[in-house]
Amino acid sequence: MSRETISHEDGAIYEFTPDLEPIETVESGAQVTIETRDSLDGSVQAESDLIDSVPEEVNAATGPIAVEGAEPGDVLRVEIEAMRVAEDRGRVITIDGFGLLDGDDEIEAPRSRITPVEDGDGDPTITFEDCEVPIDPVIGTIGVAPDAESYTTLVPHDHGGNLDTTDLTGGNVVYFPVFQAGALLAMGDCKAAMADGEMCGTGSEIACEIDATVEVLEDPGIDLERPLIETPDAWKPVASAETLEEACQLANRDAIDLLSAEHGFDTTDAYMFSSLVGGLEISQVVDPLVTVRNAVPKAYLSDPF
Amino acid sequence: MSRETISHEDGAIYEFTPDLEPIETVESGAQVTIETRDSLDGSVQAESDLIDSVPEEVNAATGPIAVEGAEPGDVLRVEIEAMRVAEDRGRVITIDGFGLLDGDDEIEAPRSRITPVEDGDGDPTITFEDCEVPIDPVIGTIGVAPDAESYTTLVPHDHGGNLDTTDLTGGNVVYFPVFQAGALLAMGDCKAAMADGEMCGTGSEIACEIDATVEVLEDPGIDLERPLIETPDAWKPVASAETLEEACQLANRDAIDLLSAEHGFDTTDAYMFSSLVGGLEISQVVDPLVTVRNAVPKAYLSDPF
Repeated sequence: MSRETISHEDGAIYEFTPDLEPIETVESGAQVTIETRDSLDGSVQAESDLIDSVPEEVNAATGPIAVEGAEPGDVLRVEIEAMRVAEDRGRVITIDGFGLLDGDDEIEAPRSRITPVEDGDGDPTITFEDCEVPIDPVIGTIGVAPDAESYTTLVPHDHGGNLDTTDLTGGNVVYFPVFQAGALLAMGDCKAAMADGEMCGTGSEIACEIDATVEVLEDPGIDLERPLIETPDAWKPVASAETLEEACQLANRDAIDLLSAEHGFDTTDAYMFSSLVGGLEISQVVDPLVTVRNAVPKAYLSDPF
Repeated sequence: MSRETISHEDGAIYEFTPDLEPIETVESGAQVTIETRDSLDGSVQAESDLIDSVPEEVNAATGPIAVEGAEPGDVLRVEIEAMRVAEDRGRVITIDGFGLLDGDDEIEAPRSRITPVEDGDGDPTITFEDCEVPIDPVIGTIGVAPDAESYTTLVPHDHGGNLDTTDLTGGNVVYFPVFQAGALLAMGDCKAAMADGEMCGTGSEIACEIDATVEVLEDPGIDLERPLIETPDAWKPVASAETLEEACQLANRDAIDLLSAEHGFDTTDAYMFSSLVGGLEISQVVDPLVTVRNAVPKAYLSDPF
């Protein structure tokens, strides 16, 4: 099957709404390459390009892509096969009113740092001052058309959106609930590198190409309420909420449901077992809702779909 | 140098206070084996042994051990060389009023589950229902005499205490600020296995033996305010606070200080760089204060002492 390229120049959204119009329709099982622009739409090319406040439009997500046959109640499986950076620089920025340490007297905002892409010795890197950091691209914003509410691409929720989760990278798979016919997948806001937490509010924001395969899972066997990530070693429910405590509760509740279904545990036993293996991981602590995941090692959980 | 054994039968504390009296005094550089009892003082040996409410005395910490020459302003380096479980069962429990999902209608508390220790094929495991989990012991409570306040062994703070951090395991090193002459180290509350988060409120609680080397670092070069963990790959400041958000801020601030000292970054650049590599990790979300760490890969940070 030939791999179709879908570019942000064909269309990109700044809001996930229930009634998104697709820019492209693909079959279930289609292999696509998705081209994204950086989260700031190219507005920061030099360290003198400062961002005074969070832009009204940010995190352009290429799409939406309708997947044939996807109906509410299905699950959309998105295998992230590979990612490549698509420009010669990333940028890390601070913005007044944004970030984990916003309001700290010693933090200067706005500031912009350019992180040039270097070839390295076959292992491409970005450079931040005297530090070379291996490029390990991450998709910051990825999701589907939500059920009833609308969410800007700055916000993560049950439809996905601005999840800013380091596991959204080549080699992993992400599953979304389908809320609308066609699912209407969109993604963007990639980083050349990002820490768990994304503390200053950005990673190294950069244009990327993402090779992915999209597939509709009918009769998925579990009632998926929010995103679920599959890595080579673990299944990770992903939850976003007002506080990290609430996000932890949601992600743990999802992990408990998966463990119960697999082992026949009641809720309490699944809760107790979830306290022994894998565990809670921070995705991001800076967006309007914060995001956490609960890793369950595959040793204790087979494919739930 | 012979390795001295110090047992919980020689002495154990349920509170870290500024004026702890040592049960033993060792030289800086001493190799010790510390024997701990389980966090519930052996009160749960069968699944019919239920814990109705958080006991007034919990997490007995073997010690305190005075280290000769340790003075306020120094750093105590504790190398955790190896850990072994020292009984044939662990226990996982729920307690009413405790745990991430406390108050959830579907969670039964109190409940106790016994997790028998099995030899496996050379790799010892604990068993929880149909699941075998490799034993990977963790120290739950470890700390030194605090500066001015007292903290029960249920509480984590800048002196350490109930940190419930999976990195407190064999092969890693933990550094504490010395607040009182002799440092007065104590540890206990070990687990045969624990998830990041310790969601139900316990891991598999079990008696352990801990081989450790304790060493006083004079003129430590950095102003260590709270625990710092060294793994083979990373340095991880550990912070406890009322909320996960506050704990993230403290741990990130400590990571920033380390990066600034190493690279000459100002606070803002260190903050931006901290958003690119390693990142925030959840230790526990259930104790009276919650605990987070901020991993900084050693590729970007050398020994700060």
